[in-house]
Amino acid sequence: MKQERALRTRQALIKSAATVFGRRGYAEATLNMISAGAGVTPGALHFHFENKAAVAAAVEAAAAGSLRTVAREVYARRTSALQALADSSLALAHALLSDVVARAGFQLGHEVLYPTVYDLREEWHAYVYRLLKEADAEDTLLPGLCRRHAAAMVVAATIGFELLGRDDPQWLSRRTLTGFWNVVLPCLADPEALRKLDL
Amino acid sequence: MKQERALRTRQALIKSAATVFGRRGYAEATLNMISAGAGVTPGALHFHFENKAAVAAAVEAAAAGSLRTVAREVYARRTSALQALADSSLALAHALLSDVVARAGFQLGHEVLYPTVYDLREEWHAYVYRLLKEADAEDTLLPGLCRRHAAAMVVAATIGFELLGRDDPQWLSRRTLTGFWNVVLPCLADPEALRKLDL
Repeated sequence: MKQERALRTRQALIKSAATVFGRRGYAEATLNMISAGAGVTPGALHFHFENKAAVAAAVEAAAAGSLRTVAREVYARRTSALQALADSSLALAHALLSDVVARAGFQLGHEVLYPTVYDLREEWHAYVYRLLKEADAEDTLLPGLCRRHAAAMVVAATIGFELLGRDDPQWLSRRTLTGFWNVVLPCLADPEALRKLDL
Repeated sequence: MKQERALRTRQALIKSAATVFGRRGYAEATLNMISAGAGVTPGALHFHFENKAAVAAAVEAAAAGSLRTVAREVYARRTSALQALADSSLALAHALLSDVVARAGFQLGHEVLYPTVYDLREEWHAYVYRLLKEADAEDTLLPGLCRRHAAAMVVAATIGFELLGRDDPQWLSRRTLTGFWNVVLPCLADPEALRKLDL
């Protein structure tokens, strides 16, 4: 029972930290704001985390965990690599909109003063590139397409949606993401593969 | 002479502020860091700027000024709207790489704790959309292309390149940008217009 309560407190602290980091940025966030937001004493926070960097690392770890779960689920039910690529970006956008911890985990990676532990952007880049390689093996890419540049385009656009979505959630909506894939899939997929994709 | 020296001091302060904002973020930057970086006393800084927000607004104004000049130059020598679109993004990337003030002006727009005065991202978005409308009038867009989604794709990708380029300048290199346009222009331009574009 005691352990259960400790786990619940830890999760409340991670969620509160994610909210505070999102609103104030890493530099301006204080441990007092984080403990107050979780409804616990500063002492209770110190029982779980040594300092602000340790709380931020826990937020990143939680974000990495849930984003990897989302990606694994999409990948498990894929019908093709290109379908998995589009679906993953939609699932990522949905997670960033609906989960304050996932959102803060991604944001921490951009903070100038926070030395990131999990590089979620780099992980996303590697995942996108792997799916394009799989699409190539499935013979669904346009002939002559440079996979490296295609991966960079998808990563830059999704990172841009993430950044723009902080001020205006419309940038992470299903409508924006579907519109994006409707524009770019014709320059990634060969015409036959394109017809089979479901947006 | 006195006026000239005041202007030089003001420009040195703007450049120093851009450097400090870029390295430390807006929240952690102090007026002392900024005056020290410009080689002037805190009193000299206060003669020019009332507070940190006023310095940041001056950085944004200077960045807006130089980015608008770059865009105007590209637009003046355009051979087509799509060519101007690609060339503008390359010129913007070059400005972000080479000009600390332009870079800081863009970054300030993303800072959670700084209420931006010039929304450079929104200005870029409006410019991209206008060029796509001009391309449509020139009859060079692919039939059925949604200009709104195409503009969102270009803006998200360039904002993403800007963000990723802070940690790794390769993301803003001519090679990355040219690779991007090689991937996406075939899904924006009709085949005849595409042949005439120079990347």
